[in-house]
Amino acid sequence: MTIQQAIPTTTEDLMANAIRALAMDAVQAANSGHPGAPMGMADVATVLFNRFMTVDPRDHSWPDRDRFVMSAGHGSMLVYAINHLLGYDDMPIEQLKRFRQLGSRTAGHPEYGHAKGIETTTGPLGQGISTAVGMALAERMMNARFGSDLVDHFTYVIAGDGCLMEGISHEAIDLAGHLTLSRLIVLWDDNGITIDGGTDLSTSTDQTARFAAAGWHVVSVDGHDKEAVAAAIETARSDPRPSMIACKTIIGYGAPTMQGSHSVHGSPLGPDEIAATREALGWPHAPFEIPAEVRDGWRAVAARGASSRAAWSRRLFDSPNADAFRAAHGPADKAALEAAICAYKHRLSSDAPKLATRKASEMALEVVNGTLPNTVGGSADLTGSNNTRTKGQGPVKPGDYAGSYIHYGIREHGMAAAMNGLALHGGLKPYGGTFLAFADYCRPAMRLSSLMGVPVVYVMTHDSIGLGEDGPTHQPVETIASLRAMPNHLVFRPADAVETAEAWQIAMTETRRPSTLALSRQGLPTVRTRHTDANLTASGAYVLRDPGKRDVTLIATGSEVEIALDAADLLEAEGIRAAVISAPCFELFAEARPETRAAVLGEAPRIGIEAAIRQGWDLMLRPEDGFVGMTGFGASAPASELYRHFGITAEAVAGLAKDLK
Amino acid sequence: MTIQQAIPTTTEDLMANAIRALAMDAVQAANSGHPGAPMGMADVATVLFNRFMTVDPRDHSWPDRDRFVMSAGHGSMLVYAINHLLGYDDMPIEQLKRFRQLGSRTAGHPEYGHAKGIETTTGPLGQGISTAVGMALAERMMNARFGSDLVDHFTYVIAGDGCLMEGISHEAIDLAGHLTLSRLIVLWDDNGITIDGGTDLSTSTDQTARFAAAGWHVVSVDGHDKEAVAAAIETARSDPRPSMIACKTIIGYGAPTMQGSHSVHGSPLGPDEIAATREALGWPHAPFEIPAEVRDGWRAVAARGASSRAAWSRRLFDSPNADAFRAAHGPADKAALEAAICAYKHRLSSDAPKLATRKASEMALEVVNGTLPNTVGGSADLTGSNNTRTKGQGPVKPGDYAGSYIHYGIREHGMAAAMNGLALHGGLKPYGGTFLAFADYCRPAMRLSSLMGVPVVYVMTHDSIGLGEDGPTHQPVETIASLRAMPNHLVFRPADAVETAEAWQIAMTETRRPSTLALSRQGLPTVRTRHTDANLTASGAYVLRDPGKRDVTLIATGSEVEIALDAADLLEAEGIRAAVISAPCFELFAEARPETRAAVLGEAPRIGIEAAIRQGWDLMLRPEDGFVGMTGFGASAPASELYRHFGITAEAVAGLAKDLK
Repeated sequence: MTIQQAIPTTTEDLMANAIRALAMDAVQAANSGHPGAPMGMADVATVLFNRFMTVDPRDHSWPDRDRFVMSAGHGSMLVYAINHLLGYDDMPIEQLKRFRQLGSRTAGHPEYGHAKGIETTTGPLGQGISTAVGMALAERMMNARFGSDLVDHFTYVIAGDGCLMEGISHEAIDLAGHLTLSRLIVLWDDNGITIDGGTDLSTSTDQTARFAAAGWHVVSVDGHDKEAVAAAIETARSDPRPSMIACKTIIGYGAPTMQGSHSVHGSPLGPDEIAATREALGWPHAPFEIPAEVRDGWRAVAARGASSRAAWSRRLFDSPNADAFRAAHGPADKAALEAAICAYKHRLSSDAPKLATRKASEMALEVVNGTLPNTVGGSADLTGSNNTRTKGQGPVKPGDYAGSYIHYGIREHGMAAAMNGLALHGGLKPYGGTFLAFADYCRPAMRLSSLMGVPVVYVMTHDSIGLGEDGPTHQPVETIASLRAMPNHLVFRPADAVETAEAWQIAMTETRRPSTLALSRQGLPTVRTRHTDANLTASGAYVLRDPGKRDVTLIATGSEVEIALDAADLLEAEGIRAAVISAPCFELFAEARPETRAAVLGEAPRIGIEAAIRQGWDLMLRPEDGFVGMTGFGASAPASELYRHFGITAEAVAGLAKDLK
Repeated sequence: MTIQQAIPTTTEDLMANAIRALAMDAVQAANSGHPGAPMGMADVATVLFNRFMTVDPRDHSWPDRDRFVMSAGHGSMLVYAINHLLGYDDMPIEQLKRFRQLGSRTAGHPEYGHAKGIETTTGPLGQGISTAVGMALAERMMNARFGSDLVDHFTYVIAGDGCLMEGISHEAIDLAGHLTLSRLIVLWDDNGITIDGGTDLSTSTDQTARFAAAGWHVVSVDGHDKEAVAAAIETARSDPRPSMIACKTIIGYGAPTMQGSHSVHGSPLGPDEIAATREALGWPHAPFEIPAEVRDGWRAVAARGASSRAAWSRRLFDSPNADAFRAAHGPADKAALEAAICAYKHRLSSDAPKLATRKASEMALEVVNGTLPNTVGGSADLTGSNNTRTKGQGPVKPGDYAGSYIHYGIREHGMAAAMNGLALHGGLKPYGGTFLAFADYCRPAMRLSSLMGVPVVYVMTHDSIGLGEDGPTHQPVETIASLRAMPNHLVFRPADAVETAEAWQIAMTETRRPSTLALSRQGLPTVRTRHTDANLTASGAYVLRDPGKRDVTLIATGSEVEIALDAADLLEAEGIRAAVISAPCFELFAEARPETRAAVLGEAPRIGIEAAIRQGWDLMLRPEDGFVGMTGFGASAPASELYRHFGITAEAVAGLAKDLK
């Protein structure tokens, strides 16, 4: 292959070469990283920013900024280079020199929260494009609520072959096409190269036909022809569908002997090739040196953005919706939610209903959605089973985004990523449901919720063998443990309607971590019949039944708290004093003071009870303590038979208690 | 909608109605289940079996049978009805009467191993079609090895909207299209209905255009027009591409007031609707009664299959490849592998190389692949990083299936499902690689490996913060715990080249469960410098360094065994006697006799060391014991700095040991 534009003829050419130079020099300095994608997509990214992107580096959280997502996250140096050139104050050249070093903001992959202008964490392929679908959906939903004066921006994505091969991209693309997310523009880095070699090693898909089949506007361009790229973006911006622009590029463009090959994908070019690249690109400057002309070009982009932001601020100031708009972007009204949940709990404690916690979740959501104006519900095609839709929640539809309920389709992974995008965009508070066993399907996106600290809420019903006949494929036994293993993630397994309401209260006011609610299919009695204003679930675990001096302590979660209480009755009849601890959230309990934990758990022999595997119970149990739960996969039968079959019964607990005592 | 064929005119019509009747009656008897799909697809399935499928119920494991996969696994009654009608001896009518009951073979979703004629476990949507891609690939690969005389069959799939919306279907479809798997025929149950309502709630994709974009032959038919269905299958069988037949159907076909609606998807029809359905279909027979004419029709299908099987058996008997063919379908040659691994270990112990265990894995694979003739390697586009390809492994290519290495593309989930299919098909022994952090991407298929007990091998490299600069998105910290949580799954984390070889020996001779090998990116010293013929990894954990009487016991896995040994040196210099336990496989250690475990772990204070979270270590540690590892996500920096930063060092271990002692 030859380099068409080796000699730059315009400032825009130089602006692109600045990205290339910074990328290859930073990767070389780190002796680690991916120069290929930033060098290959430098022209496309420069055209995008120079002619279209509206961002203000001095106000990186401006709600109406355009969003830019580098879905091919290994090309992080493209992001860092651009953000440096635009003048973000936390991205000085020293950060680029410390690419991939401990404590720098320039991590190997773009990490949300590490630096301004990073809209989402990417690196696990396919997540960026799928998160961007949520952002573009949020834009339309906020536009429907607040009008084009306040919300009118685009979401741009650079995606690589890996992003488009990952299954999650299918879910995202279908959802975006269905919902006609016209403000979403994906720039595909069509360089024909993956790590193993040419893409022809593993794929024959016609990507433009694929996107067209999903209802997208598609166009193909030479990714090094800036006018063609600009024209394609211009057309895409006015098309009523989401757009995919296939940009034919040369990976590592500019590196004379290595470009166009997979050898340039993921390792430094080396000093010789870098010198030759400088020559070929006509870029005589030292590493990390940017000439004034180029810097001025990029700063003009920032200035244009600042001017747009200023005009927007004036519009917000004049808007009758200003307060509501600001409130939507602020924290949830904790006091209002606490009052509403408290009043609701009062009713519950006296009514003492017997309810599946999934149904109790719906009732709690009626309170939540009646109190917080910006919640957005949804389900991966299990609305009636997850009980995620409350009265008055109209569906979001193609072209009509006023609703607040999303039919995500049978797309758990796409749903989770879209929820990340909805939350990251700002203004909306998403929650979404599926069966707990299918948390596995969305786990990579759940992990990003946790890593980014995005407070989305996963409503995971049918949380044990208690779902019955659907059998082991649908019965989580290890899923709760696997979620408890995830750092920075709250896993709630409420025992009744009261704890369910308390869990919702915490999840919806949490600001720095996601929550999962594990909810039963089967009916459960109210165990919190004595009202407390205090949110006991917030303590993680607490004494539900206190016999005074204890002979044994029974610790249970969710549907097994009922079993623990029944066991305590059986034991009491034999003169054995059993305390019952309800433990709806291990993570919050782990944060309690050691003396609090010790007081709750007591000194007596303990038995943990959970219709799941024991792993993760080390917080609660000592080696000499007992556990009643599962040791393997479940089975297909009515729930009550399964509980007996697997020995998760009050009788079994009482028997074990007598052995331990 | 009206029922076009209410009055059956042919035996084939009656054969289809028998499926409908059995499905609705069994669901009613269970008061649980999904009648909609079996009733909707009864015509398609009847045509498929009556005119095309070649199976012999008396020899359900006949290698050259056609494979049938009910990817829409909730429609399990279609499978059970057909297998009963075909005369499988373990599927008498009593089993259908006990649908979804404890101990019956007729679980809520089809469970591999529960009954003959169930080719794979389905229910989690998208898994069936993706597993079938592996089966269809296995057919071509075995055909390339043994010729059409012995291997010449089709893989048929019934897939629903859910299967096609799931992301994994994208990975599977692309891979199948790329590899031109002409023996794969997917029958899409295009009924326009999902659980939440019409498919137009959540999708606008043109599925036929989508499949065509991936290189498939596509055709659309009326799924209740048997001649049209037959013609489409006939054409599909001769097309050189994989085929997708879009079958326009009415869900719950035959139920007069409920058909065509989502209300017929997942619950019993009720006695009145069932009576009306009998009327409408002209099916006057009592529940679970099948008239002789219908039974004879289905038994003729079985007889045709038996005849084909008999002819095949004669061909096998006459074939010069008979021994090799039988060997490929038998267990691995344990003795040969043990001898080869033992000789290799001997060399390693004396060479004592310093190697990343991913590199050691490649070396072990050279031995494995040189000993076992039917291994099939692969990677999700990380061949050079996972070190999964050995010398002489040619790639499998479109139209050329003689190779034994698969470029799965950036499709971890599709890879895992395809490996399940390769293994289930028989004749091949698959392993495949990705980064350990991306186990999350394939977890639903890994869970099915475990649930089915399919001994595929997952090669998961870059297994901790030791991967360095790629940062927290790529660094597993909770992944090992999440895999250890999965029942019936061996998780190996070998410390050096010797343990890596031992892990491979176990994984490749295991017959009833899958294995994951967690392997380092960074170099590790040989810690097993004293050769043992015995496979110490098979014990799960063993004393690597024995100081006689112990002051403290250090238990480590993988890359942290080196740290434990260094810490023991530091302690020894201070007169403190530290035993070092290498624990490469917790699951195998859990199976050891309690007294063996007690002897290994000893009575002294213990410290667990693993560059991952503590969850899952309760097997090894008591509350008073210590743990040196991770408590949250990692960071982007060179590996050695990260180990220091997170305090996973010999000095930290030694310091903690002094505190505990």
